[in-house]
Amino acid sequence: MLIILRQGDALKDAERVRAFLARSGLEASTVDLGDRLALSVVGVNGSPFPANVESLPEVERVVPVSRPPRLAAFRDDDPPRGVRIGDRAVGAGRFAIIAGPCAVEDEGLLLEAAAAARDYGADMLRGGAFKPRSSPYSFQGLGARAYEMLARAGQETGLPVVSEVMDQASLSAAVECIDLLQVGSRNMQNFNLLRLVGRSGKPVLLKRGMSATLEDLLLSAEYVLSEGNQSVILCERGIRTFSGHSRFTLDLSLIPALREVSHLPIVVDPSHAVGRREGVPPMARAAAAAGADGVMIEVHPDPARALSDGAQALRPEDLARLVPELRSLVAGAAPLRETGA
Amino acid sequence: MLIILRQGDALKDAERVRAFLARSGLEASTVDLGDRLALSVVGVNGSPFPANVESLPEVERVVPVSRPPRLAAFRDDDPPRGVRIGDRAVGAGRFAIIAGPCAVEDEGLLLEAAAAARDYGADMLRGGAFKPRSSPYSFQGLGARAYEMLARAGQETGLPVVSEVMDQASLSAAVECIDLLQVGSRNMQNFNLLRLVGRSGKPVLLKRGMSATLEDLLLSAEYVLSEGNQSVILCERGIRTFSGHSRFTLDLSLIPALREVSHLPIVVDPSHAVGRREGVPPMARAAAAAGADGVMIEVHPDPARALSDGAQALRPEDLARLVPELRSLVAGAAPLRETGA
Amino acid sequence: MLIILRQGDALKDAERVRAFLARSGLEASTVDLGDRLALSVVGVNGSPFPANVESLPEVERVVPVSRPPRLAAFRDDDPPRGVRIGDRAVGAGRFAIIAGPCAVEDEGLLLEAAAAARDYGADMLRGGAFKPRSSPYSFQGLGARAYEMLARAGQETGLPVVSEVMDQASLSAAVECIDLLQVGSRNMQNFNLLRLVGRSGKPVLLKRGMSATLEDLLLSAEYVLSEGNQSVILCERGIRTFSGHSRFTLDLSLIPALREVSHLPIVVDPSHAVGRREGVPPMARAAAAAGADGVMIEVHPDPARALSDGAQALRPEDLARLVPELRSLVAGAAPLRETGA
Amino acid sequence: MLIILRQGDALKDAERVRAFLARSGLEASTVDLGDRLALSVVGVNGSPFPANVESLPEVERVVPVSRPPRLAAFRDDDPPRGVRIGDRAVGAGRFAIIAGPCAVEDEGLLLEAAAAARDYGADMLRGGAFKPRSSPYSFQGLGARAYEMLARAGQETGLPVVSEVMDQASLSAAVECIDLLQVGSRNMQNFNLLRLVGRSGKPVLLKRGMSATLEDLLLSAEYVLSEGNQSVILCERGIRTFSGHSRFTLDLSLIPALREVSHLPIVVDPSHAVGRREGVPPMARAAAAAGADGVMIEVHPDPARALSDGAQALRPEDLARLVPELRSLVAGAAPLRETGA
Repeated sequence: MLIILRQGDALKDAERVRAFLARSGLEASTVDLGDRLALSVVGVNGSPFPANVESLPEVERVVPVSRPPRLAAFRDDDPPRGVRIGDRAVGAGRFAIIAGPCAVEDEGLLLEAAAAARDYGADMLRGGAFKPRSSPYSFQGLGARAYEMLARAGQETGLPVVSEVMDQASLSAAVECIDLLQVGSRNMQNFNLLRLVGRSGKPVLLKRGMSATLEDLLLSAEYVLSEGNQSVILCERGIRTFSGHSRFTLDLSLIPALREVSHLPIVVDPSHAVGRREGVPPMARAAAAAGADGVMIEVHPDPARALSDGAQALRPEDLARLVPELRSLVAGAAPLRETGA
Repeated sequence: MLIILRQGDALKDAERVRAFLARSGLEASTVDLGDRLALSVVGVNGSPFPANVESLPEVERVVPVSRPPRLAAFRDDDPPRGVRIGDRAVGAGRFAIIAGPCAVEDEGLLLEAAAAARDYGADMLRGGAFKPRSSPYSFQGLGARAYEMLARAGQETGLPVVSEVMDQASLSAAVECIDLLQVGSRNMQNFNLLRLVGRSGKPVLLKRGMSATLEDLLLSAEYVLSEGNQSVILCERGIRTFSGHSRFTLDLSLIPALREVSHLPIVVDPSHAVGRREGVPPMARAAAAAGADGVMIEVHPDPARALSDGAQALRPEDLARLVPELRSLVAGAAPLRETGA
Repeated sequence: MLIILRQGDALKDAERVRAFLARSGLEASTVDLGDRLALSVVGVNGSPFPANVESLPEVERVVPVSRPPRLAAFRDDDPPRGVRIGDRAVGAGRFAIIAGPCAVEDEGLLLEAAAAARDYGADMLRGGAFKPRSSPYSFQGLGARAYEMLARAGQETGLPVVSEVMDQASLSAAVECIDLLQVGSRNMQNFNLLRLVGRSGKPVLLKRGMSATLEDLLLSAEYVLSEGNQSVILCERGIRTFSGHSRFTLDLSLIPALREVSHLPIVVDPSHAVGRREGVPPMARAAAAAGADGVMIEVHPDPARALSDGAQALRPEDLARLVPELRSLVAGAAPLRETGA
Repeated sequence: MLIILRQGDALKDAERVRAFLARSGLEASTVDLGDRLALSVVGVNGSPFPANVESLPEVERVVPVSRPPRLAAFRDDDPPRGVRIGDRAVGAGRFAIIAGPCAVEDEGLLLEAAAAARDYGADMLRGGAFKPRSSPYSFQGLGARAYEMLARAGQETGLPVVSEVMDQASLSAAVECIDLLQVGSRNMQNFNLLRLVGRSGKPVLLKRGMSATLEDLLLSAEYVLSEGNQSVILCERGIRTFSGHSRFTLDLSLIPALREVSHLPIVVDPSHAVGRREGVPPMARAAAAAGADGVMIEVHPDPARALSDGAQALRPEDLARLVPELRSLVAGAAPLRETGA
């Protein structure tokens, strides 16, 4: 951490700031920048550093020199292992295709979707039980009952199942039925929920908030990781921008940016971002080509009858065409990490 | 609701869509637009209308003709009454100044801030007990203990107190101590929490999410209102944009836009949006001049010592100068609703 | 165009609005929506429709029923032909790789870059002559001299050349030397320039403005097309958002969205959007997989010596690896237009 | 400028970077940050510093220590003087109200608007002659003829006149007729135009681009200032965000942020940002209260007949009510610059 002082009576100022830091147990050495002084504090890793140094009158700016160590951060001696969900894996060279309806609506339709997912080569089955909806008057999902239907559909097809949890109550119901716990975009900074899923011992799929930066997303992952749960998968699902041709703007360049700072796998949800069926396969292919570790795709046996987001759901035959395209894209991809400077 | 059909075999298409609507108990009349047909459905108020009509192959677009009735919506025969908090009110001509530290840090500092708030003319005292922080390693607040300190500071100064709640546990602790329950930006779409504060019977201050539209904000208010709790105050606190000179972009034009569609009062938090002390008084004045029903301002007896967001806190003497400016701005304001077309 | 009237004395209101429309030579038929009236105006194509109808006191809202006919709009009987540049083509199944330095700096480096572009399989050579720079104190390019160097490099390698024009003067200099005229992001709404390149008779590469919607981009293309110049290629190069991990947010979902409304080819510039070399190949691959008609990539023989944007330039050996990856991605892609609803 | 080196063979690395800098004539001293080295370069003011230092393999990051000197930057020994336009001034305590129609449509309407502007207390008359319109099929303004009408209206009412210029041709026509040359948002980075108005010797009103940062805006001003033209007024007119309740999001916190880094006056255009008449007076008042040096307001004698943007134009009687409100807000405002740290 480098503390750049304002121009002024620099030596006295440096003394005062050094005394302030000493109260937090920190030692600082003086650095001469030519036209002003700075103080260099080594061995500080973000958390205990007093955030208010920057508001001292003597201080112009505080510049972090090294990144703070993070549980989400890539370490060279520890190659990515991916996250295991049942007998499947995401990351470390395994590309996961998660498919299923936006919301579980009835058991028959779910089994139909699950069979299509299995038959056409998906790796996991998704389905919403509790739906966080902007309006209290919209369909809110079938609740805990849907977790049980998912569990049965998973057993029948051999696919691990993914579903969102929203609080302690839904988590308690999900933990017996669901293999991969999803934390939705609207809850990405629901820090209590992050701690709860961290303690659950189950793998977690953490969706990026619609206005979250890469740093925000990693810090939210840190809440889960710091509870001792290493099985965290991130999910890009589009951000809020002025651009109106898609519901959200899918920010695929998050993928290479993430590779430079974290070992966590990342999957992409093109369905919610694009919001129209026609745009989903191109963006799923783009995600695979950009180096994602998987995609999450909405599929419905009869989109026109879907109670929620039917316009963006693929039909089973669309999935049948898309899966081999994605597998072949991933097979042909160059290594994710570029060499050299 | 007007359902515009694609150009094609229009009469047959209209029949098919009409049959689809009939399954949801809706009647539609055919409308001739000259080069195509449409179906007009009257008496639909958003919720029961099947959202998937738009994904039928025969349908080009669905156009809402009237706004759905809402609990948050202004009704002409029901003049705004404002929201009462103890012996104070917000809205309906009452401008509320809420002041206090970002986080409650210790009882002495809190009492000092509370005395300044009272002496310099604020209406309510704010202070954070549970702080939702992006990083798990940042100071998270003193928790329930801080609610009790706030209650004592409120009693001592005669000021109602405002503090954030995050879940069932913090709500249970807050309900005895806190007069106005705040739901923070990161929880604006934590729908379970909205329902809980709706049932609490206490007034609620609902902060706009950093990527929420006006519509999203009103729908979140609807979660509280639909539990029978009419005491909802909205709060603009800045949105996420590319613009980097302030931490968030304070979107004051929300105020006149809101006046056209809702009777709910709205206050503005310039402190978090601007992020630097120097910018807070100008933006507080701007909020008052734009017609806000109040402002929420961070004040700290010694900002350089603050554990959280010291750089944006006003000093007590800054508050002393700002309060009369705001009172005089509000007194001189023209009526909020413009006449004419 | 459907004009929905406010609730009120509807028949009289309809009469007044109808009279207003008649003054512009428009006929309107009354449409009964059940709880209100509307007026339907057929055969209006955007331009002559009086924009101020919406501000009449009787009018609640104006709803476009059909899209206005556009020169940029796809017509089914007219399959995409792509844009020809010399003996190359972009679009209609031809994927173009445009490579070269950000700015032309000296003839030796340019020839080196051009040779690498040709040897490693690029289709065209790019290079900036006039650089629009945010600061007047930054390197502004070599000017018209650089066009001549590009022309020589193009002759030597057999590659058509692409370079930006900024005004009448640079256009006059470019027209003899440059095969594909680029209009930059900052000039996307420089309408005089659009008309000038429209009249030049040369193919035009129109980059999306950093805050332009799809509609804005198509309307800017319309300025070029309406001068009789059909050779317009669009270019996605990233939009301004809050997301800070890349310089701009590459909005690849523009590609499928564009396919539904326009026949114009679209290429993607990942170099400026991402801003870091490591992120360029993944995003170039993603663009190809999303269905782009080409990519524009910065390549420099010695990025560390580049005068402009060296951090984002690929080295020649990076290009050598990327080109075959892109060719193979494009070969394996499914048809761009999905079938069905 | 502080160049922080990567961890590694630091002394050798420092030597290589120092040699690189020497080729640009820069001297650097080594700074020990404890766990790594840095190089400090003093006396560099942005422009000659080689931008590609950051892309050297030895360099982790380049941190600016001091801001570069700028013509737009406040200097303490040089109090703001404001900008003079004819016998009026903007800034340095003078609050300017600029009023008039969006576009000049015919001389009668213009004179009517001009008389209202004068009678109701505005300081200047605005009116568009060349209208940059997104669509080539929209009304594009009357062109040079409108400048002459403005000049006559200005003479008749004694008000200086403001109008937009777009290129050399419109500038040549404007220079005899127009007192304050406006550069529009879409041309904020049309650097040739900036240089041309810089050389014109006339005062310039520079509107912020819809995705421009504060820094971008100041750098564009620098293009004008560096031609020797000190009479530059900035104008905030709303930025592009996801927020849909207003056409653009008026970013009033630009005002206090600008005060800290520049002496240039700033006015606010609420009409285009809000897009609806009802929202204009509240936002004009907010601009005044935030410390703006003026507002630019669209006024039309008969908005329902306006050819361009009628929905946002105030009627003359609205202006009559607004002007005294603004004057009284400005009179009561506290000094713009807060004291203390």
